[in-house]
Amino acid sequence: MTSATYTVKGMTCGHCVSSVKEEVSEVAGVSSVEVDLASGLLTVESVSPIDAADIRSAVEEAGYELVTK
Amino acid sequence: MTSATYTVKGMTCGHCVSSVKEEVSEVAGVSSVEVDLASGLLTVESVSPIDAADIRSAVEEAGYELVTK
Repeated sequence: MTSATYTVKGMTCGHCVSSVKEEVSEVAGVSSVEVDLASGLLTVESVSPIDAADIRSAVEEAGYELVTK
Repeated sequence: MTSATYTVKGMTCGHCVSSVKEEVSEVAGVSSVEVDLASGLLTVESVSPIDAADIRSAVEEAGYELVTK
């Protein structure tokens, strides 16, 4: 199991958190997704590492921005 | 046709607007609902006047607060 952490910009409420969770959960290989609204922290667990570009696409699909490290 | 205007507190994004619209639209007699995120303005149209308590209940059901005039 692999865990990767990202920061998401633009979430303002619980609905935003739900949207991000929903889209990121649909990325192939993702087994669990946690999102913290206050910090914008997005934690993605998967069996094998996932391309950050796929996570970025999912976050953008939800209408938010992935902060580049 | 009657139009009544209220102010809703706590909405932060388009999802919040959708939640309020959805709940208020379900109030018996409501024919149209408009919500402005920036101002919090909620405009409710109906054939006959609607009890403000019913609108308040719907807004609270959505998770937001109706500002008392």
